[in-house]
Amino acid sequence: MEPKPSKTWRERLQEIIFESNTAAGKAFDVALLFAILGSILVVMLDSVTHYHRLYGVLFFRLEWAFTLLFTLEYLLRLISIRRPIRYIVSPLGLIDLLAIVPSYLSIFYVGAQSLLVLRALRLLRVFRIFKLTHFLTEIEFLSVAIRASLKKISIFMLTVLMLVTILGSVMYLVEDRQNGFSSIPESIYWAIVTITTVGYGDISPVTPLGKFISSIVMLIGYGIIAVPTGIITNEIAAAARNKNHSSESCPSCGREGHDADAVFCKFCGHHL
Amino acid sequence: MEPKPSKTWRERLQEIIFESNTAAGKAFDVALLFAILGSILVVMLDSVTHYHRLYGVLFFRLEWAFTLLFTLEYLLRLISIRRPIRYIVSPLGLIDLLAIVPSYLSIFYVGAQSLLVLRALRLLRVFRIFKLTHFLTEIEFLSVAIRASLKKISIFMLTVLMLVTILGSVMYLVEDRQNGFSSIPESIYWAIVTITTVGYGDISPVTPLGKFISSIVMLIGYGIIAVPTGIITNEIAAAARNKNHSSESCPSCGREGHDADAVFCKFCGHHL
Amino acid sequence: MEPKPSKTWRERLQEIIFESNTAAGKAFDVALLFAILGSILVVMLDSVTHYHRLYGVLFFRLEWAFTLLFTLEYLLRLISIRRPIRYIVSPLGLIDLLAIVPSYLSIFYVGAQSLLVLRALRLLRVFRIFKLTHFLTEIEFLSVAIRASLKKISIFMLTVLMLVTILGSVMYLVEDRQNGFSSIPESIYWAIVTITTVGYGDISPVTPLGKFISSIVMLIGYGIIAVPTGIITNEIAAAARNKNHSSESCPSCGREGHDADAVFCKFCGHHL
Amino acid sequence: MEPKPSKTWRERLQEIIFESNTAAGKAFDVALLFAILGSILVVMLDSVTHYHRLYGVLFFRLEWAFTLLFTLEYLLRLISIRRPIRYIVSPLGLIDLLAIVPSYLSIFYVGAQSLLVLRALRLLRVFRIFKLTHFLTEIEFLSVAIRASLKKISIFMLTVLMLVTILGSVMYLVEDRQNGFSSIPESIYWAIVTITTVGYGDISPVTPLGKFISSIVMLIGYGIIAVPTGIITNEIAAAARNKNHSSESCPSCGREGHDADAVFCKFCGHHL
Repeated sequence: MEPKPSKTWRERLQEIIFESNTAAGKAFDVALLFAILGSILVVMLDSVTHYHRLYGVLFFRLEWAFTLLFTLEYLLRLISIRRPIRYIVSPLGLIDLLAIVPSYLSIFYVGAQSLLVLRALRLLRVFRIFKLTHFLTEIEFLSVAIRASLKKISIFMLTVLMLVTILGSVMYLVEDRQNGFSSIPESIYWAIVTITTVGYGDISPVTPLGKFISSIVMLIGYGIIAVPTGIITNEIAAAARNKNHSSESCPSCGREGHDADAVFCKFCGHHL
Repeated sequence: MEPKPSKTWRERLQEIIFESNTAAGKAFDVALLFAILGSILVVMLDSVTHYHRLYGVLFFRLEWAFTLLFTLEYLLRLISIRRPIRYIVSPLGLIDLLAIVPSYLSIFYVGAQSLLVLRALRLLRVFRIFKLTHFLTEIEFLSVAIRASLKKISIFMLTVLMLVTILGSVMYLVEDRQNGFSSIPESIYWAIVTITTVGYGDISPVTPLGKFISSIVMLIGYGIIAVPTGIITNEIAAAARNKNHSSESCPSCGREGHDADAVFCKFCGHHL
Repeated sequence: MEPKPSKTWRERLQEIIFESNTAAGKAFDVALLFAILGSILVVMLDSVTHYHRLYGVLFFRLEWAFTLLFTLEYLLRLISIRRPIRYIVSPLGLIDLLAIVPSYLSIFYVGAQSLLVLRALRLLRVFRIFKLTHFLTEIEFLSVAIRASLKKISIFMLTVLMLVTILGSVMYLVEDRQNGFSSIPESIYWAIVTITTVGYGDISPVTPLGKFISSIVMLIGYGIIAVPTGIITNEIAAAARNKNHSSESCPSCGREGHDADAVFCKFCGHHL
Repeated sequence: MEPKPSKTWRERLQEIIFESNTAAGKAFDVALLFAILGSILVVMLDSVTHYHRLYGVLFFRLEWAFTLLFTLEYLLRLISIRRPIRYIVSPLGLIDLLAIVPSYLSIFYVGAQSLLVLRALRLLRVFRIFKLTHFLTEIEFLSVAIRASLKKISIFMLTVLMLVTILGSVMYLVEDRQNGFSSIPESIYWAIVTITTVGYGDISPVTPLGKFISSIVMLIGYGIIAVPTGIITNEIAAAARNKNHSSESCPSCGREGHDADAVFCKFCGHHL
């Protein structure tokens, strides 16, 4: 982290743009965050017919201003980094490109500008910026817990996907095609709407047997939500235990379970 | 808490109105609670067309009676407290003002009386009154747990907000404007309705790709609810542990925070 | 529990009807359970127009048969118990009465028979019967946990009620009366539909500001469900701990935390 | 697991088809998984009118191809296993039969082919295949926790069923038959839709009293979801504890189940 005395302009540029342990790096990240939020706000407001009619020209200009700004940022990233290809094909690099390409495309193809909404994906950079702040510990804590439960959660999600496929197929058989269950994928969509307890009501069972099966689907959905909750709750507890407990054992009595801030063994009083 | 022998009428008034460790103070709080509930009930019933037609005049009089009562209370608060400005600009002070201003405004502006519904905000005082009762321990317990998890919950909420912005933007691109996804804010509103599993059905996807993306949004919403639940559950467990924690301080170094099963001080090694 | 040698017929009758530690008592309870389920099934099927047309007369006879059976049961309860008044005014006694009165009322008042659906309330007796079975431990376990968290849950519910009153009132102000928010009670109903993530869609916000406030309500509802879950989870954990752990401390080293099945201290090896 | 030197072709066939601890067995399972997924995909796409029109003939041929493949598999299972009757009447055996019978039936009865959607049930085999993979530990872990909580969850589900029967019956009495509450089963269906917070909105209360009772149903549904979550969370914690439990057996009495921090056997007091 200690900056070496002799640094080229490229190294310094990279430090500002890609890292954030220097004052300039932090300032750049915060400025970028505001630019991203601003550009998304403009695209958002422009999508509302009312505002588009009133300020359409202003929004158009602002969108181009942000496009040029993000293009400059993109080029600076390309020249400052040692391996630009690796950045270009990285997820964040592709998102950065997606945020500027639609504007240029719109010169040749009318309507391409509608892809500007993809700028919202740049919000993912917010997380990087958040990491700098005092939220760092909390984010790391949560991501440890979530990563630890990923395997169990994915088994749960696979079970849910299997259930909705089976239940959707059965409902396609039971309900009339006129009632919205017009194909198996449509029925599976209904099963997902139902098992997640969203319940739009755009498709809902009409026949008595369909309502009976639906009731079972709902009760399943209502009940099995407990499983991922139980998994995450326990992983968070495990992460908290690991953070608060030193795994050190007492050199005198050999017992473990001391708090992270303990200096003396709580069982025999020996210095740890 | 011990009342000093020589107290001015102002000190005594303040004790009654602002504090509640005296019998008079408790009585005032309970009376105020009933007045607030009564005034809200009147505004509520008055909003129902049927009752308004039958008892409109009675409700009008009762609303003025409560206004005068609350005005008196407000003035008493102003003169009894040492720093009235501080009370006026405090949240509770502003709510107290909001509860009486509409009535007076309605003399000059027809329709201002509809703002009387803001009296419901005075319900927030209920919490202050609850604190007096035997619920005190429970409220403190829960608020400790909630305050401890606030940082983690706000990260979760920010993630959800980011997700709905991205997912709403994508759906705005995918779905036809005629299907209710008429602007990005509208699409974000849909994404919130979906990810929280509320699912009104006022806007729902129509195209196959839209339904596919919706299904993903629903499954995300169904799954990530586990995260705040896990956070709160563990903070409540921690709050319960702290309550159980030995409050014993080391006789040698005086520090606290020892486990209930500790025999020796974990900081200085002294026998507890 | 040991039956005394000299028992009157009344004592024996009471043992059969009110208690269930004898073979006859158990048989009576199980027979009653089937009678209740049967009577509810008949009322249910009779409410379906299609079946009513086909088997209306049969259902009518069966309903009277169950009425006479339950009347007999009610009279036997009255004569067998020492303090019949106490039974009559008890919740279960009133429900038992409610299950037979509508039939007799229907002789004088046409339509009173529709009150027969109240027989469903007799399902509450199922719990009493369940207690006899091997579910007893589980039911006691869960009711200990739920009773322990009742105070905290009721604070949570009060907070939710306060929130929906405030949020409903604000929405009544914000949304047009034509959009379904026709009165404050109606708006509060909407707020409950929204905060509990039920989301019928019978009333949903139309104005941009209304949608914005709704989004906040939904996110609140999505988030605060974590609180009762956290409370119950921890109370269940506490109930489980109490069941599995002996509170015994070792007579030799004085330490606690032994399993309920431990014979020797796990720390010093001394006999417990 | 070590294959015996002298094996008949039948034993070898059974090893491949029914077991999966050999390379051939694993390959068979994976191939079967892909065949099942492929056959379900074909049935799914065929159910979409658009694709049926374009590729109907292709789908018809593929369905027959899968039918013949699954028939071959079924016959191989029958001849390789020692007790074929036991396989035929087992749940998985019946599902395997259900996946091929509709095709043959469709030769005699037009429309029987629509039962092909039941092939989705074969997805249940996926779990068997998953067990082979590195998910084995996680699946076992979760199924231990779920099995342990089954009794408590079923009490919860019975309570919910009782509640919706009572609440549905009451709503049938309160609401007008025109508002969708046309029979008690219909009202119970509404109560399930509401208490599980699905909320389609196909049936929703219209009268003030109906809305009031609905609000209570919603709040109950919102609150009691905490119970299964609490149960599962604690069973997962217990399963995790058991995994962490020292698997050490006492050198003196040979018994296991000691805590990780135990120094002496809790049963005989011998030093571990």
